[in-house]
Amino acid sequence: MQMALDEAHIAAQANEVPVGAVLVGQDGDILAQTRNQMRALNDPTAHAEILAIRQACEKLGNERLMGCSLYVTLEPCPMCAGAIAEARIAKLFYGAPDIKGGAVDNGVALFDQKCCHHAPEVIGGLRESDCAALLTEFFALRRNG
Amino acid sequence: MQMALDEAHIAAQANEVPVGAVLVGQDGDILAQTRNQMRALNDPTAHAEILAIRQACEKLGNERLMGCSLYVTLEPCPMCAGAIAEARIAKLFYGAPDIKGGAVDNGVALFDQKCCHHAPEVIGGLRESDCAALLTEFFALRRNG
Repeated sequence: MQMALDEAHIAAQANEVPVGAVLVGQDGDILAQTRNQMRALNDPTAHAEILAIRQACEKLGNERLMGCSLYVTLEPCPMCAGAIAEARIAKLFYGAPDIKGGAVDNGVALFDQKCCHHAPEVIGGLRESDCAALLTEFFALRRNG
Repeated sequence: MQMALDEAHIAAQANEVPVGAVLVGQDGDILAQTRNQMRALNDPTAHAEILAIRQACEKLGNERLMGCSLYVTLEPCPMCAGAIAEARIAKLFYGAPDIKGGAVDNGVALFDQKCCHHAPEVIGGLRESDCAALLTEFFALRRNG
């Protein structure tokens, strides 16, 4: 999660909402280390998780990430939770919960729904205070401009 | 929707689940015309809708698609519905409903939830039988190998 936090810090410096992600393969290899880049790439789908999934799949030459673990500093949104299910990721570790925008333990709680065809094991709250502090600080700075 | 259907036909020929999408700008310009390419690109996020959103945003140099309309042959899944909300698409026209995998009028019905920060106007069932027939035929052929 420290690597994901490092990525989130880089995102903040680039004026992107500070979220970072790391994708780890079945045997512990780092397959991707990414951060939010919606503004830099002019791409609303360029959340840290989506970029991590795309990079890891490209690296493995496979559209499935069976046995892989995703570490992300913020609870995934509906788009990213959907992508995690599509990619068949085995384990999801997230940092700060997202009461408003999250879709894992908040909102539509996608993985708990009957319509969800694959649900990863979920461990939330990893380095929660560090992950949350980064976001709080970022939005406070933007508000005070 | 005919253009989206044409794309879905191309997808079927490439052994991809036949779903096609077209993104139309505020003034009627075609911004993107895409199809499912998960297998070709080894990318579980390469649904027709995601590719359309990414292409259109790149074309406009903007991470928002305000005033734009998305035509897609199948009801979007949670990932794509989430992306449609992130992109702030104004209108969604879809063809066949997806009872199992859809997230607009089925499943988590994302746009009807309080947690959803942007909901497009939705018109479902456009060319429904043509869109559905293409999928039914594709899966029947795969089963019979």
